[in-house]
Amino acid sequence: MSALSRVTGGRLRFGGDYNPEQWPPSVWAEDVRLMRAAGVNLATVGVFSWATLEPRPGAREFGWLDRVLELLHENGVDVCLATPTASPPPWMGARYPETLPRDEHGQTVWYGSRQQFCASSPVYREYARRITEDLAQRYGGHPALKLWHVNNEYCTFCWCDETARHFRRWLRDRYGSVEALNTAWGTAFWSQRYDSWEEIIPPRRAQYLHNPTQLLDFRRFTSDALLECFTGERDILAGHTPDIPVTTNFMPLWHGQDGWRWAAEEDVVSVDIYPDPRAGWDSPDGPAHGALVQDLTRSQAGGPWMLMEQAAGPVNWRGVNHPKPPGLNRLWSLQAVARGADAVCYFQWRQSRQGSEKFHSGMVPHAGEHSRTFREVRELGAELARIGPEVTGTRVTASVAVLHDWHSWWADGQPGRPSAELDYAQVLTSWYRALWEQNLTTDLAHPEHDLSGYPLVVLPHLYLLSDAALDNLTGYVRDGGTLVCGCFTGVADSDDRIREGGMDARLRALAGIATLHEWWPLHPGDELTLDDGSPAGLWSEELDIVSGAAGDTLTVPARYADGELAGRPAVLRNRFGAGTAWYLSTQPGHGALRRLLADAAATAGVSPVLSGLPDGVEAVRRGGLLFLLNHRRGPVTVPLPGPGTDLLTGTHHTEEVTLDRYGAAVLRS
Amino acid sequence: MSALSRVTGGRLRFGGDYNPEQWPPSVWAEDVRLMRAAGVNLATVGVFSWATLEPRPGAREFGWLDRVLELLHENGVDVCLATPTASPPPWMGARYPETLPRDEHGQTVWYGSRQQFCASSPVYREYARRITEDLAQRYGGHPALKLWHVNNEYCTFCWCDETARHFRRWLRDRYGSVEALNTAWGTAFWSQRYDSWEEIIPPRRAQYLHNPTQLLDFRRFTSDALLECFTGERDILAGHTPDIPVTTNFMPLWHGQDGWRWAAEEDVVSVDIYPDPRAGWDSPDGPAHGALVQDLTRSQAGGPWMLMEQAAGPVNWRGVNHPKPPGLNRLWSLQAVARGADAVCYFQWRQSRQGSEKFHSGMVPHAGEHSRTFREVRELGAELARIGPEVTGTRVTASVAVLHDWHSWWADGQPGRPSAELDYAQVLTSWYRALWEQNLTTDLAHPEHDLSGYPLVVLPHLYLLSDAALDNLTGYVRDGGTLVCGCFTGVADSDDRIREGGMDARLRALAGIATLHEWWPLHPGDELTLDDGSPAGLWSEELDIVSGAAGDTLTVPARYADGELAGRPAVLRNRFGAGTAWYLSTQPGHGALRRLLADAAATAGVSPVLSGLPDGVEAVRRGGLLFLLNHRRGPVTVPLPGPGTDLLTGTHHTEEVTLDRYGAAVLRS
Amino acid sequence: MSALSRVTGGRLRFGGDYNPEQWPPSVWAEDVRLMRAAGVNLATVGVFSWATLEPRPGAREFGWLDRVLELLHENGVDVCLATPTASPPPWMGARYPETLPRDEHGQTVWYGSRQQFCASSPVYREYARRITEDLAQRYGGHPALKLWHVNNEYCTFCWCDETARHFRRWLRDRYGSVEALNTAWGTAFWSQRYDSWEEIIPPRRAQYLHNPTQLLDFRRFTSDALLECFTGERDILAGHTPDIPVTTNFMPLWHGQDGWRWAAEEDVVSVDIYPDPRAGWDSPDGPAHGALVQDLTRSQAGGPWMLMEQAAGPVNWRGVNHPKPPGLNRLWSLQAVARGADAVCYFQWRQSRQGSEKFHSGMVPHAGEHSRTFREVRELGAELARIGPEVTGTRVTASVAVLHDWHSWWADGQPGRPSAELDYAQVLTSWYRALWEQNLTTDLAHPEHDLSGYPLVVLPHLYLLSDAALDNLTGYVRDGGTLVCGCFTGVADSDDRIREGGMDARLRALAGIATLHEWWPLHPGDELTLDDGSPAGLWSEELDIVSGAAGDTLTVPARYADGELAGRPAVLRNRFGAGTAWYLSTQPGHGALRRLLADAAATAGVSPVLSGLPDGVEAVRRGGLLFLLNHRRGPVTVPLPGPGTDLLTGTHHTEEVTLDRYGAAVLRS
Repeated sequence: MSALSRVTGGRLRFGGDYNPEQWPPSVWAEDVRLMRAAGVNLATVGVFSWATLEPRPGAREFGWLDRVLELLHENGVDVCLATPTASPPPWMGARYPETLPRDEHGQTVWYGSRQQFCASSPVYREYARRITEDLAQRYGGHPALKLWHVNNEYCTFCWCDETARHFRRWLRDRYGSVEALNTAWGTAFWSQRYDSWEEIIPPRRAQYLHNPTQLLDFRRFTSDALLECFTGERDILAGHTPDIPVTTNFMPLWHGQDGWRWAAEEDVVSVDIYPDPRAGWDSPDGPAHGALVQDLTRSQAGGPWMLMEQAAGPVNWRGVNHPKPPGLNRLWSLQAVARGADAVCYFQWRQSRQGSEKFHSGMVPHAGEHSRTFREVRELGAELARIGPEVTGTRVTASVAVLHDWHSWWADGQPGRPSAELDYAQVLTSWYRALWEQNLTTDLAHPEHDLSGYPLVVLPHLYLLSDAALDNLTGYVRDGGTLVCGCFTGVADSDDRIREGGMDARLRALAGIATLHEWWPLHPGDELTLDDGSPAGLWSEELDIVSGAAGDTLTVPARYADGELAGRPAVLRNRFGAGTAWYLSTQPGHGALRRLLADAAATAGVSPVLSGLPDGVEAVRRGGLLFLLNHRRGPVTVPLPGPGTDLLTGTHHTEEVTLDRYGAAVLRS
Repeated sequence: MSALSRVTGGRLRFGGDYNPEQWPPSVWAEDVRLMRAAGVNLATVGVFSWATLEPRPGAREFGWLDRVLELLHENGVDVCLATPTASPPPWMGARYPETLPRDEHGQTVWYGSRQQFCASSPVYREYARRITEDLAQRYGGHPALKLWHVNNEYCTFCWCDETARHFRRWLRDRYGSVEALNTAWGTAFWSQRYDSWEEIIPPRRAQYLHNPTQLLDFRRFTSDALLECFTGERDILAGHTPDIPVTTNFMPLWHGQDGWRWAAEEDVVSVDIYPDPRAGWDSPDGPAHGALVQDLTRSQAGGPWMLMEQAAGPVNWRGVNHPKPPGLNRLWSLQAVARGADAVCYFQWRQSRQGSEKFHSGMVPHAGEHSRTFREVRELGAELARIGPEVTGTRVTASVAVLHDWHSWWADGQPGRPSAELDYAQVLTSWYRALWEQNLTTDLAHPEHDLSGYPLVVLPHLYLLSDAALDNLTGYVRDGGTLVCGCFTGVADSDDRIREGGMDARLRALAGIATLHEWWPLHPGDELTLDDGSPAGLWSEELDIVSGAAGDTLTVPARYADGELAGRPAVLRNRFGAGTAWYLSTQPGHGALRRLLADAAATAGVSPVLSGLPDGVEAVRRGGLLFLLNHRRGPVTVPLPGPGTDLLTGTHHTEEVTLDRYGAAVLRS
Repeated sequence: MSALSRVTGGRLRFGGDYNPEQWPPSVWAEDVRLMRAAGVNLATVGVFSWATLEPRPGAREFGWLDRVLELLHENGVDVCLATPTASPPPWMGARYPETLPRDEHGQTVWYGSRQQFCASSPVYREYARRITEDLAQRYGGHPALKLWHVNNEYCTFCWCDETARHFRRWLRDRYGSVEALNTAWGTAFWSQRYDSWEEIIPPRRAQYLHNPTQLLDFRRFTSDALLECFTGERDILAGHTPDIPVTTNFMPLWHGQDGWRWAAEEDVVSVDIYPDPRAGWDSPDGPAHGALVQDLTRSQAGGPWMLMEQAAGPVNWRGVNHPKPPGLNRLWSLQAVARGADAVCYFQWRQSRQGSEKFHSGMVPHAGEHSRTFREVRELGAELARIGPEVTGTRVTASVAVLHDWHSWWADGQPGRPSAELDYAQVLTSWYRALWEQNLTTDLAHPEHDLSGYPLVVLPHLYLLSDAALDNLTGYVRDGGTLVCGCFTGVADSDDRIREGGMDARLRALAGIATLHEWWPLHPGDELTLDDGSPAGLWSEELDIVSGAAGDTLTVPARYADGELAGRPAVLRNRFGAGTAWYLSTQPGHGALRRLLADAAATAGVSPVLSGLPDGVEAVRRGGLLFLLNHRRGPVTVPLPGPGTDLLTGTHHTEEVTLDRYGAAVLRS
């Protein structure tokens, strides 16, 4: 029995962050009444309650929380109980200024907002340990408790002196000696050689470009330092309640943490997802973003996962914050379920009337229970209850793996690169979207993962690839796999040291490249034409293919038709061992990228969930169910592969189903 | 006898800032000769003279000022004498670094510019007190002295530790207890609860969004802290010279001070106005800006006021600084007089050859007395002398009140709102301009003011409305008034707490709104169409009108014709008690807004000063005079309501008057 | 025998920065093999070696450098040995934080990058002195040593307290008394009068605009403070090796140093040049930029100079970094030789695999010896060896002087000016380019230089002109010279004090201007038309010409045809003494500017090197050689003035020569 199945008990969890401390108890009664009306069965409590629970150092105010948990329990709402350590009370910053982060400019990051803690601070960690201990002791046996939620969206960076000491310890663990560090960082450049550990600092504000490996290691360290905060609390909780799973909620596709490493430390993987309701199906910020994060989270979890936060309506942190039109909240919730979510939760239950997020929507918005928003929430709750038993705990199977690695992202995003236009997340998203639009179901994977189960592996762009990853990819293709690689890949090793020749020799061998002369990044707005007439942009490469290889094993599906590289190979396809490797030395236009990936999928024997669907209609299979999701702004009729019953409506469909604008069907055949 | 009439003595004051300490005494003789030639009758002296008057702590150098005042007096130029406290001498910052402001990042704001003082600093205040005392004692009885000018454009914010202590005292006065503060600020959100006053700090640089009420109160506090500096000096001056009025010059429509509260502490209200000479009549930066500031200042003063600073030519703080074409200086000066100014003054008399503002024009520019600029100044001086006796001290009567409140502006301008595009000052200006272009004479008013004298009240956008304001507006309409409200109004109470339902129930009742579901802000460039074909932008609202109300009392003059809200009400018009309330849930295009406001004015029985004027021709009545001002870039002929004599030329006009490009007429019928 | 001729020994120097400490000794052997293959005869060693040479305070590690110099010497590669003082080792910042710069916000600029030293720090200077001393002592007699290279691209600004003390000493030297400083700075404005030296600080972050003369003097001081660092090291080196010249490499057209003053302290003048390979011949960032920097450097040197750094391919500090297409590296190298370079060197020999510049190209790129880049380097090396004996040490003669002064640039670039659009470097570049495109060979000159040797002097824009400069220009024209002046010139004196009338009377007399009423800067995108139909932009001036002067001596070649100044003079041409002065009160469009300068050249009797060349073909004479350089992206045929032999190919041409895309010919007639 998986940890998450202990949380769900076989039904979809539905609910959200519940912050009763913001309201008088008179409202609590209305809250539980409305929760019952909406089918809420899980409330996340206490995420930002530290100052309420511990109004001054060492004090404890648990009475209100006792009453809240009791009230929820009495009303059939289970509890995801949070440690409140994401937002230390003002007294901590006031009494212990050393707990406050310092930015790279040396400026203190003050309290008065949230997340103002230095992950390396012993004082912060000790106070966090104590409140976690006391929460576990007091509520570990509460019958409503189903899940621990540690902290919230870990994201705080710090460059202070305590962090510097911690960074040095981390580096000593990694490198053993200062000499090894000097070698790994290449400190011979610009006279950066360190003579002792004590000289090493975080990459603070400098005159010009920083040492790239210092920057990269500081990213790794920060991820690990925050992870220590998580595991520290997790271990306390697990010590008290070995049967209650522990999670922490990730931000979607966030660059700050090594999500593979973090997920391995969690019992249950959960994430917050906030696509832009203004974005259409063909936008990277719309449902493709949701799908990508969902696939990533499922891949991190190795199965079902929790949608810990989404918005019932608008958020408040964009420049212009759009509400969700009728149906969109339901559609995106069902998309999460289709892609493996066993919980659909919100930030937050009741929209705040005060504080920094009072314009972030709630399940119960300012307009109250008679609002359109709450009506839709209530209807969704009923639907999720209906389909829950058939879907909870079931799996999504993907034939395509999309490779993703935070370390490459970190190395990639630094200044001083060939082009500031080559954005890791944009490239990843564009490739993912080209697959998603064709209903090719995907997992995300680390390049060192076992890929043998995937007929097709897609690597949009990984500047940094470890030796293990390169050996893994080589073995994968040699043994019959199909690999599609994007540009500027395999350039650096794990220390961000450029591979000889500017691209790893193993990868060159896979792709059939003899010499990589130069990278030719493109200016924004500049475009190239390939010899099949399709446009390309962002990047191009001046390369020679392996001499005499073209023909039998190596083909050149596309050449540059104009620009400085006219006549040179743009896309390579190389038989290698029992498999095939494609290399795209440029970023094709979206249509061309779709076609190239469709070609690769076809040759790899990978089929879409359904073929011939209109654009903007998403099809996913989970367990025995077929989810059809209409992201278009109008109704659409979809031909079915066979008869089936829509679990949402109970209607039986034989040949086709018509989906309203933002409509969905969950078909059991 | 009003304070200002003691300054004017029945003539229009004409002059400017005079900084003789920048020049050798040989130039002073030329100055007074040219002042006499130009008809200058008031010189503002000493605004930035602190380091000259007090070259080292406690020293006094008054001799030069004695001579300057004597020289001015001998030449018939009266004096507005300034306290020099806007710019402490370098010795103060060097010896007392604690007098220097710190910004929100903790960075010191150094001397070497101006206004580098922390308003909360006891050391600064004590030195300011002493020099003010000595000036009052020495010059209080000087026959040239007609007005005291305190400081200059108060605007300095500070986040230092002394400010923190002061902020706490201010908060203690406001809230009495930390508990009350926690309630008002909603510190339950994000664990921001304060346990003691000592923990509270100004909103310094933080990890993410600040507490909104902390931000709002810090704005209120800063306005009050600066006001204490003003009243401290004022009280010293008044103690010495009870009959000499005191003023301080405001910046135009500046967000930093609560102008209603400040004006109440001044004997005479004065302001600096700097429209962009490049902007046409249909631009918000052109004469409409001038008119708005003039109406606001007159409303603050409750009658005539002083134009303390304008530029004879270009300023030097825009990206590109345009001179004034021939006639424009005269036109904008007469506009100020038309709208209640009893003084037309400049920064500055003689353009500096050194220092940070040497490219800011002067009445005597670098080109000297034979310049076009000085010739126009001289001609204007003569004209103002001619019309002065008929205009000085007379009143402007307005039938329309435009509501404006700094506190709402402060609350409105924070991050984390539905849309960063909704700019308070832009909305206020666009509505004002729609009235101004139609020659509907307006006052500005606070929403708690007595509005019963205005047939029409226009409320462009007040996110925050106090209970008193809401009761006031309700009573105003109930008793027969006509109120036109713009979008996103009445959302928050005085603590920036969202009203239940997202919009105050009283305002909803006025407008005929049952439920306000969602705010739908628009992206820049996005546009909606209303069902009368007119465009709208910026904002829209998903709302239900009061059920069954439509028809008799509630009409819907416009609905959304496209977008997510197609078919829903956009503009409401509701009979309420004996009056009528309009609600615009979007920002109509400029033409549509003009028409809507014209409709409202017509139904309220409010007429323009003159109807049927060509666009860009402004008509204002002051006392018994009709001012006609041509802001167009070419001549125009204006039909007259009756015969009259132009005081500027002495010409009698019967049926029409032709105004040159940038021409004007001041007609006595 | 000039210092540089001691370096060259009559051949063109070819090579680059060589950083063997980044590589294992096994690579060194390959390095020298490839250097020999490429014809490299000079390697710059040790530029960033401080931490390697002095791994901890006082330690010395010279062994590796001994071996490197020996290896180079054995292989016939001479050495330019650098002092490593541009990048202090981390131990210096860690042990002596006072050596780290502070920015204007008071923030420390940390180590971990490069150039993190405060030029005023005694600790830094002492450590720099010692390592320089030891290098000179150890290697002064090495037979490979041909040149000393001090530091690298001096550019660090600092606002710390030590800098403040140094700034005060510098000011005391300049002004003698605080009173004189107060006068020069105009501190009567805004109460900025200083009572003692101790109060004076660098222009740190302030509330509003700084004192302009303080800003200007801080620029002068910083240039001088850095120059003291240079001369300090130079004097040590010269003491040891009086016959080995000393240089430091400038950044191209860099605003931070007074290049005239610096060059005077150098034995050999060298510069780094990095045009954008993406820019075409008609772009200010392309070959015109290279030519301008080359002419400037030659003018600073008073003869041949060294190209110390260029890139063999892309750089890594632009947003998007383009490689050099085939031929471009050769073309731009020959351009430098044509304009006086006796050395063509690169940053760097071997592209780094680690560190902040691993994406900056090298002569040996990542792709290695079989790369296109290295093949072109090798070919170029052979060509330079071929032409070297005929070109090294010869001179370029120019008939046109373009005036340039860093002090005016510094004064010009401040905020608070009439227009932020008037960019000194852009104006200078646009005028230079208009001359360069017409193959009018130019020197750059300071306005106080002896200009009598130039028939034509062009002054694109010098806001600040000293009395000496104005007298010099007046004398130049009086004695028969032709001067063309751009707008907003001669406005301020050396203290940035506005000249009476807004423009110096001497310059007004030269130009025939009676009164300068106003400057009318134009908004970006705004354009004026002159009465010859040509467009103009950026700026215009409202001026009266000398009454009655028009006609005989004063003509008005162009008037404004529209806008506020329609009908007024735009371009003046005035006979003055035996010469002629032109004044352009606006910035004509590029074509019009070309024509105006061509007219002026024609009347001054100045001819282009060749007439009638296609656009984008550059012609320069050096010594007896004619360089023809094709910057076009296609081949071009150029008619020759007479027969000649191309030294690059040995081919004899009689009537014309065809140049490939990016092709060149070096013709001896």
